[in-house]
Amino acid sequence: MVDIATRVHNHKWKIDPIVRSLIDTDFYKLLMCQSVFHNKPDTQVSFSLINRTKTIRLAELIDEGELREQLDHIRTLRLSRGESTWLRGNTFYGKRQMFSPDFMQWFENLQLPPYHLEKRDGQYELTFEGNWPEVMLWEIPALAVLMELRSRAVLQQMGKFELQVLYARAMTKLWEKVERLRGIDTLRIADFGTRRRHSFLWQDWCVQAMLEGLGDKFVGTSNCLIAMRREVEAIGTNAHELPMVYSALAETDAELAQAPYQVLADWQREHEGNLRIILPDTYGTEGFLRNAPDWLTGWTGIRIDSGDPAEGAETAIRWWKERGEDPREKLVIFSDGLDADKIVDLHSRFAGRVKVSFGWGTLMTNDFRGLVTDDALAPFSLVCKAVSANGRPTVKLSDNPNKAMGPADEITRYKRVFGVGEQERLEVVV
Amino acid sequence: MVDIATRVHNHKWKIDPIVRSLIDTDFYKLLMCQSVFHNKPDTQVSFSLINRTKTIRLAELIDEGELREQLDHIRTLRLSRGESTWLRGNTFYGKRQMFSPDFMQWFENLQLPPYHLEKRDGQYELTFEGNWPEVMLWEIPALAVLMELRSRAVLQQMGKFELQVLYARAMTKLWEKVERLRGIDTLRIADFGTRRRHSFLWQDWCVQAMLEGLGDKFVGTSNCLIAMRREVEAIGTNAHELPMVYSALAETDAELAQAPYQVLADWQREHEGNLRIILPDTYGTEGFLRNAPDWLTGWTGIRIDSGDPAEGAETAIRWWKERGEDPREKLVIFSDGLDADKIVDLHSRFAGRVKVSFGWGTLMTNDFRGLVTDDALAPFSLVCKAVSANGRPTVKLSDNPNKAMGPADEITRYKRVFGVGEQERLEVVV
Repeated sequence: MVDIATRVHNHKWKIDPIVRSLIDTDFYKLLMCQSVFHNKPDTQVSFSLINRTKTIRLAELIDEGELREQLDHIRTLRLSRGESTWLRGNTFYGKRQMFSPDFMQWFENLQLPPYHLEKRDGQYELTFEGNWPEVMLWEIPALAVLMELRSRAVLQQMGKFELQVLYARAMTKLWEKVERLRGIDTLRIADFGTRRRHSFLWQDWCVQAMLEGLGDKFVGTSNCLIAMRREVEAIGTNAHELPMVYSALAETDAELAQAPYQVLADWQREHEGNLRIILPDTYGTEGFLRNAPDWLTGWTGIRIDSGDPAEGAETAIRWWKERGEDPREKLVIFSDGLDADKIVDLHSRFAGRVKVSFGWGTLMTNDFRGLVTDDALAPFSLVCKAVSANGRPTVKLSDNPNKAMGPADEITRYKRVFGVGEQERLEVVV
Repeated sequence: MVDIATRVHNHKWKIDPIVRSLIDTDFYKLLMCQSVFHNKPDTQVSFSLINRTKTIRLAELIDEGELREQLDHIRTLRLSRGESTWLRGNTFYGKRQMFSPDFMQWFENLQLPPYHLEKRDGQYELTFEGNWPEVMLWEIPALAVLMELRSRAVLQQMGKFELQVLYARAMTKLWEKVERLRGIDTLRIADFGTRRRHSFLWQDWCVQAMLEGLGDKFVGTSNCLIAMRREVEAIGTNAHELPMVYSALAETDAELAQAPYQVLADWQREHEGNLRIILPDTYGTEGFLRNAPDWLTGWTGIRIDSGDPAEGAETAIRWWKERGEDPREKLVIFSDGLDADKIVDLHSRFAGRVKVSFGWGTLMTNDFRGLVTDDALAPFSLVCKAVSANGRPTVKLSDNPNKAMGPADEITRYKRVFGVGEQERLEVVV
């Protein structure tokens, strides 16, 4: 029997919306948003799309009208009653009422602010300006929309069975990784792949496959909507945007040197336990740890998000030992450019020496490499970053100069202030 | 929206029937059935299931009650009006009214005769007895039911995502073969995989994939139901059961020696063109061709169904040349144990020397080798054969002694009458 009503209803949609919920975003964006809402609500920021993979000319692949329709659709979204209930009532990281009533009330009334879009040199310039708590929530949906529109542009050319076989191959590929990872006894792994996913439905499938294939070893997803629907943990802590904006706001070099620690001081007031995770690489891990105040050594762990991950973990272990901490009690979260092989290697190298956990991103939710001609579905390196705060440019150095951003003179200044010397250049895959 | 009516309706089925139509069978069974209906309608035959793969203990895998329910369901089937219209009105092999009104009237009133089922030594003994035209129509549905119940028994143990990945892998596997075959310019290939398919839905998927992937190179399917629904050609000519039964009916050695030619004399009265295909191996290809009457050299082609296929084709080419025919005008149909590699090899060896065509069976519709633990879904060699006619045993020698059947003393007699000497033993995979 054909369900005529469903079919007729489906044809009434003007578009097939990619992002259908304000909580189809990363959990850490909401944690950070609340922190910003309480600590820096009036900061004026600007976020910009940056396509690091220049060979992919997004403005030639993706129709501007379709992009606008998707972004406009996101601006029509409001937090639904069920979503609000879940955020208010759910236990996150073992804590009830993670989100305060004043923040929830603000979120329930939120509409995402306007965007600015134009084409330049085959790329889209997409920027968002306004109050930090509002603007920051554009990052993930904007990336997800662009990634999925690019997927759709390629899929558009394919026949019905080609499509079926494409997804069959992608499923097989992920499942082989799951079978590989299943062999690691003490694995703890989470989905961090929302921002550069192939599509929403594909991410949702991947999460379910991880859940069935890995059981308890799969600890959750960064995606709030999927966490809610699939009844798994929402995972995430904080990101570079906090130190980047705090640093841009610093009035003097002395304030700048302290800004990254100020971020964590604010964070510590709000969060404990597994939410106290240091992200040390914004202006170089070595210097950050060397100059860190003693109270930071008590934090639960560290997230390694750039540079050589094994080296980063060794640096953290050395630091804990120097400060009299037992690394075996500390958590190291790897989250940069992971795939099954790297996960297996890193786990075997560090398990037992520290507590190890993985935030698996793009190569979990978008490993379509090698599946179509010209590799037209291979993931690429698209980000959406805070580029200025109260009119001043932001800077990121990270542990890989290929991931650095900001004006050249400001980069020089930040390197001086944070004592960053020569850095190894590593290819940024995704 | 959930379609409540569909869901409630689906729950009313007592079983999930495997064979749902009397034309979910091979086209050549209907062609032969009509021939028998006209030439030998009262012959009493007995068909038996034979599992050549003794290691697969079907009676331990498949529940007897479920098997009976499936077979009983087949006995409730009648030719539907639409099916009858298609058989009466469709063009087969370029001919209208392939099926005569008297045959169609008989078919429209047909109910398949009772079956006899018991367990012995971990296998099922399944036999069908009665008038040849009725009994013969049990062969394909009986095989399809046993094959699919065996698949279901294995699938029963698997989780939802394991199942999805299993089919993803099987799809990928078939599609890789399709992509391989697509490269052959003058390919002509048909689906011959009904009898040993993984399941009906899987065969139907495979046919659609071949259609999308190969276009005109895919010339059709032996399955009438799928041919009707997917609007492709129904393909097939004749099989060993005709010479086997005709031979069993022979009163003397002299009549026996002529029986295989008598089959084709009867066939020639009914069919022309691409339906005049010699199946020469029932009692050894060499002797069959050596002693063949001259009118057979005028036939369109030959089907190679046992022995080394390249050798069989070379034998046919030599024979045509000896008889003054141009092999380039003749059709060779390969149909035994084919897979993509073998198809590519045979095509490159014979294209240009003869017209080449392929009837691809089990490794098209049931290549689940290597996809689950213990290879529990690998296809195996199950057949359902005419074992006696009017009380006398049938015999098959073929060009591979591993495919021979019949009582030992009768095999000896047939070998003498047909002048069959030493034969090479070849492994029967499927």
